[in-house]
Amino acid sequence: MNGAGNPIDFYFEFSSPYGYIASQLADEFEKRVGRPLTWRPILLGPVFKHTGMAPLVEIPLKGAYSTHDFSRTARFHGVPYKHPEKFPIGTVAAMRAFYWTHDRDPRQARALAKALYRAFFAEGRDISAPATVIEIAGTVGIDTAALAAGLEDPALKERAKREVESAIANGVFGSPYFVVDGEAFWGVDRMPMAEEWIRTGGW
Amino acid sequence: MNGAGNPIDFYFEFSSPYGYIASQLADEFEKRVGRPLTWRPILLGPVFKHTGMAPLVEIPLKGAYSTHDFSRTARFHGVPYKHPEKFPIGTVAAMRAFYWTHDRDPRQARALAKALYRAFFAEGRDISAPATVIEIAGTVGIDTAALAAGLEDPALKERAKREVESAIANGVFGSPYFVVDGEAFWGVDRMPMAEEWIRTGGW
Repeated sequence: MNGAGNPIDFYFEFSSPYGYIASQLADEFEKRVGRPLTWRPILLGPVFKHTGMAPLVEIPLKGAYSTHDFSRTARFHGVPYKHPEKFPIGTVAAMRAFYWTHDRDPRQARALAKALYRAFFAEGRDISAPATVIEIAGTVGIDTAALAAGLEDPALKERAKREVESAIANGVFGSPYFVVDGEAFWGVDRMPMAEEWIRTGGW
Repeated sequence: MNGAGNPIDFYFEFSSPYGYIASQLADEFEKRVGRPLTWRPILLGPVFKHTGMAPLVEIPLKGAYSTHDFSRTARFHGVPYKHPEKFPIGTVAAMRAFYWTHDRDPRQARALAKALYRAFFAEGRDISAPATVIEIAGTVGIDTAALAAGLEDPALKERAKREVESAIANGVFGSPYFVVDGEAFWGVDRMPMAEEWIRTGGW
């Protein structure tokens, strides 16, 4: 099969419930398909500005459905979920901390992403403030003083911004969003289709 | 299990590719869950006006993804699909013809819905004009002269309009949209979840 072993891009935003649920299913998914996932946090704000879309919960009818569906889908997948009191939130600090960590240790960046997601969607913590992000980073073994300094670095800000722009340039408009050898799959509920695509080589 | 045997509302719009795909899976779904589906065509135009949403294909990035995904999802489910040259189209005549037929013979209305969907999404026909709808109705045994007269009846127009308003009042914002004992499931890709909900009685 073409593309065997190639990494799969996994785009997500830290304030996205479906991104969170996907992150909890990611390791098992990776094992089943036999390909590594490249975790790529983005910001949906600039995406929505580009597409004219609005945050799910702000859309009449669809918002009420979605709020109900977040926890229903989490339960369906056996993922702990407690809808955050303040939602959605800004996640630029979380995203920057991810890339800062990633450039030093990709595995640790993944651990940080999981810890941040868990804090926000399972433990009721608001992860918008840099101080909270840094504190959580400490719990997965990241050097908090170095991270705190790194978060102020204009080069990191620029790098994170380019990640978002590059995602938009690649057509990413939601979270989670997977790209398998150029083939895009949007949503937790498309993970089974992506898996079938990989298994069969496409159709 | 509560609700066993109760009908399931199946909302769809005749210009919706995912509604079409769901319609092709509906009979098998109905058999597996052991409950009848109540087919309820609606118009997404008034829904979008209410929610501020736009037709999928008009949204930057999401539009390109969706156009690609329509046929990919159809192939995934083994459903014939040829993306219509003119798309989306107005489907008020198709919807009215459905309800006119439904009030006389619900089974025939379902046959009409399938024939209209097939004509539009598999056979490359534009079903927006009443004359085309009437001609297709003839192929499933409907009295075309009576239908032609019926489509001009203000009472039918009012009845169809109320169906759309009632759908919006019930929270329907997309196509396909299923309601199982008050629990809503939106999208073809949520049919497996709806099925599991029915099988287990919810979670």
